[in-house]
Order: sequence, then structure tokens, then C-alpha cells
Amino acid sequence: MALTVVGSIAFDAVKTPFGERERMLGGAAVHFSLAASFFTEVRPVGPVGDDFGAEQFEVLEKRGIVTEDVERVAGGQSFFWRGRYEYDLNVAHTEETRLGVFAEFEPKLSAASQNADTLFLANIQPDLQRQVRAQCGAAKLSGLDSMNLWIETARDSLTAAIAEVDVLVVNDAEIRMLTEESNLARAARAVMAMGPRAVIAKQGEYGAALFTESGFFALPGLPLEDVRDPTGAGDSFAGGFFGYLDSCDDSFEEAELRRAMGYGTVLASFNVEEFGTERVSRLTREEIDSRFEELRAMTQFEGPAAS
Amino acid sequence: MALTVVGSIAFDAVKTPFGERERMLGGAAVHFSLAASFFTEVRPVGPVGDDFGAEQFEVLEKRGIVTEDVERVAGGQSFFWRGRYEYDLNVAHTEETRLGVFAEFEPKLSAASQNADTLFLANIQPDLQRQVRAQCGAAKLSGLDSMNLWIETARDSLTAAIAEVDVLVVNDAEIRMLTEESNLARAARAVMAMGPRAVIAKQGEYGAALFTESGFFALPGLPLEDVRDPTGAGDSFAGGFFGYLDSCDDSFEEAELRRAMGYGTVLASFNVEEFGTERVSRLTREEIDSRFEELRAMTQFEGPAAS
Repeated sequence: MALTVVGSIAFDAVKTPFGERERMLGGAAVHFSLAASFFTEVRPVGPVGDDFGAEQFEVLEKRGIVTEDVERVAGGQSFFWRGRYEYDLNVAHTEETRLGVFAEFEPKLSAASQNADTLFLANIQPDLQRQVRAQCGAAKLSGLDSMNLWIETARDSLTAAIAEVDVLVVNDAEIRMLTEESNLARAARAVMAMGPRAVIAKQGEYGAALFTESGFFALPGLPLEDVRDPTGAGDSFAGGFFGYLDSCDDSFEEAELRRAMGYGTVLASFNVEEFGTERVSRLTREEIDSRFEELRAMTQFEGPAAS
Repeated sequence: MALTVVGSIAFDAVKTPFGERERMLGGAAVHFSLAASFFTEVRPVGPVGDDFGAEQFEVLEKRGIVTEDVERVAGGQSFFWRGRYEYDLNVAHTEETRLGVFAEFEPKLSAASQNADTLFLANIQPDLQRQVRAQCGAAKLSGLDSMNLWIETARDSLTAAIAEVDVLVVNDAEIRMLTEESNLARAARAVMAMGPRAVIAKQGEYGAALFTESGFFALPGLPLEDVRDPTGAGDSFAGGFFGYLDSCDDSFEEAELRRAMGYGTVLASFNVEEFGTERVSRLTREEIDSRFEELRAMTQFEGPAAS
């Protein structure tokens, strides 16, 4: 069991109505890895600059994350993102993106990362996603995230990348945009016609929905009273989802996919309670399982007594 | 067992990307009554004009709905609403509203309607809602819907009306607007502090969430591939919810509330498949129960096998 993830390893500057941080550890591969680390061995792949130091590596390594494929580029600067959120935390406003060492990134994975059972291609340029996918022929389960930017500027590459994975994990608006189909159920079916066996529509505070050939499953977001920073929620969701599935014997059994949706929802819920990686980096498996049971009680017809 | 509902009994003109109707039976009390009629005796209260004829009464009476408190105002015109929807069916654009006989409406309920066990105050001017509430002292369970217009123009009356019911059923944006609290869980708690024991946040295609003192329950909307007209979906939801609860011995038992959420979701899903009342008026209880089981299978961790 091992899980390889490629994506941004970054510093974020974030401002929300509930506080701000000028420079904190972030990036899709970081949020994903921390969330997945509760379930399996995780191997993030991506470049960082000289500014990425022992303090940042320690956050990952304390959670048992294998950092040998985090490539330090001498003289380079790490990916940097600055964004802000208004009271409607569902919408991020990007104020600045500096690619830094990502501009020249050519993924070369170690043998161990290439041989991982599970692969997640976080949101980066789709040609880079395809390069990584090509190196990971052993993956029994693969997933991909993307964003409106690539739908608009690299549609053909993105379509080719999507065709090569098992699960597409994007926002519901992006599924509609990608397929040019306003009805979400039809749009998900159109994605499956492109290749994937499953489609996850992330829906912000409304939760997430899973479409497969045989059915549909949906979970609401947990009704949190304190949400401080939604940055990384989608990546934490994916980390919980794929991390759990990598730990299963049969990752495409329907009940396992549903439990994976539950773990994704739980990890995302912890992620948003504090800024950046603050909450997830000190989380425990006991807290995760306890909240999973709360989620079960909140979504099952039989009610709390059945949990 | 009987359920009284007050609200608009109307003609609608509706245009969506999937078709249009120039004049069809509509109104909140109509959609509510049809949905609730599968579970209990329903008694709609409201005025209609000369234009409301045998054809319209027959749609209601065929479903066993008791129309003795549908007041025919000689020389008057029925409430009329004209609206349209774009591809994003979550947003209705109102193009015309004619109050007609509703402008002078003074509710005077028959003894049987006053003695109903359950009362639903559909979206009308909150002082009218309070007049009806005052006449229905026997109601063991009462609910209220409203809209942004009344939050903006009649906040004090609306707050007083809300204080007098058990369940508030409104869109999530309206809960935020009413309480001036952006976080939905906090906003729901603020509503409960005003009086209601439960708050239902309607979330369009995302489904609906139930907040009670003791907990939280949420259901997604069904993943329909054919949605033609969302008009009346919220009222059909409320009709399924309160209709089912009126048929229960203990309507505030948690498991019953959850099943009621399921029936509300199912009735709303049928409502949107065709225009106006077309689908629900020819629905059967067997179709409802079958879709309820589909919904259960789509939302329970154990998956389809457990249904």
C-alpha cells in the first residue's frame, strides 16, 4: 500500500473574514498528503525552492509522509498563492499566483513512487499530470483534480488526462463547464463516457456527490459553526478519499467508495476549522473516526441511535 | 388527522429552457396540498377568482383534497405569477405578480380546518399567516415558509409569525438573511432561539438540511436527468414533509422527522420533472415509496444492498 500524489507544494497568503496568515504551508499536494497520511503511506511529488526549509518538511514527516520525491531546486522559490475569501466562503478570490520552481518542473519519480498502488494527480497543468500518470503504470486506482483555468486554456490535454484516470474529482461547476451540460447527472455521465469509472462533484459547504456506473451517493458537509479558512478543503477531501481507498483490499467495492466519501468529508471538515494545515497537522485518527460516526448519525434515516 | 394549509392558489405562466406554459394551475397551497394528499386529509385555505373553475377544483378533489375553505370571490381574479428560469434552474426570475383576490383576503377558517392537527403557513404576507395561526389553536405541529420580500418589508411581523410555529422551512439564503449570520449552523440556531423547534434549510438541487435542538440531518436532491420546471419544488417538499408527519403518532420523534425529510425530497423530485402540477397530480403512492427506497439507497453508507 502506498499513495503517490503530484501537485503544488506551496506557501499561501490567505485572508478570510475570520483572520489572515501572511505565509503558511499550503499547496494541493500538502493538504492531500496530510489528510491521506492517516490511512496509508503517502509520497508527494513536486518541486520546492530554497525557501522551503526544515520547518515545512517537519510538518510532513511528523505525519509519516515520505518526502524523498519533494525536489529541492537550488536558487528557486516555492509556488506561492495569495487569496482572500468574503463571508461567502464558497468563493476564493485569487490575488496573486507565483509559479516559481513549478514553471520548469519536469517530474521524475523514484521507483517507489512509480510503484504506488494509488495515484492522485492534484490540480496542475494537465500535461504534467499526464507525464506523472505515464510513470505510474502500477497504479490500480488513479484520480485527478483540475480547475476552470485548464478547461479554458488546455481542454485537449485535460480531456486526454481525464481519459487516463479512474476517478475525476472536481467542483460541480467545473463538471458542467467541462461537459457543457447544465444538468449535473447528465454531465457526470458525459465524464464517464470520457474514461473515468467514477466522478466526484465537490459542492463546497453542501458536501460532495459520487456518480458511478451503478449509482449515486451523496453526503452533506458537516454543519460546522466555526469555519475559518476553506483553503485546501477539496484537497483534504481527496486525501481522505484516496487515502482510505488505498488502505482497502477492493477499492471499487461500492460500500468502500461510500466510506471513502465519508472520510473525505471528515478530513475536509477538520481542514476548514483553522488556517492552512494547522488543524489537520495535529489531528488524530481517533478524532477522525469519532467525527465519521457523527457524520453517519447525521445522514442515516435511522438516526443517532443506530450509530 | 388533518392538515390545514394557507397560501396562494394561483395560475402560473412559466418559461424554462425546456418548455413553457402560458397558464397553468399553481400556487404554494396547491403544490403543498397535492404533495401532502398522499399521506393525510388536506384542507387548503385561500381565495380564488371567477377564473378558477371546475377544471382546477377537479385536480384537487381527485386527490381527495377538501376544498371547502377555498373561497370563491365573485368578480375577482385569482393570484397570477409569471416567471422564467435560465439554465441554472436554482434561480427564478419573477416577471409579473398580480395579487388579485389575495389583496383583500381575510382568512376565515371552517371549524374543521381550525381543528386540524397540523398547520402549514405557506409563503404569504406574515400578518395573514398570524391570523390563520391564531385560528388554529388545536394544531400540534405548525410550519411556516417565507421569502426575502417579507424579510425586507415586514421583518417584525415575520419574526412574530416565526415565533408562533414549530418549524421554519425556508431557503438557506433566507435563513442567513433573516438572522444576518453567514454561517448556516449558527443561523439555524439563531432561528431556534426565536421560537421554532426545528429549521429546514431548502438548498435547491443540493437538497435540504434539518436542524433541531438535538442534531442535524441532511439529504441531497435526487440526481434527476430531466428537470423541466422547478416551480413549486419547495412547496412540494413541505407538503411531503408535513403530510407524512401529520400521519405519524409522534411527529417530533427524530426518526419520523428524518423520514419526513425523505418524503419531502421525493415529492419535490417528482414535482420538477414536469411543468406545474402535471407530474404530482397523476403520481401514485407506490411510485413515492419506490423512490423513497431509491433515496435511502443513495444516502446510506451500507449502499443499495441494505435497502
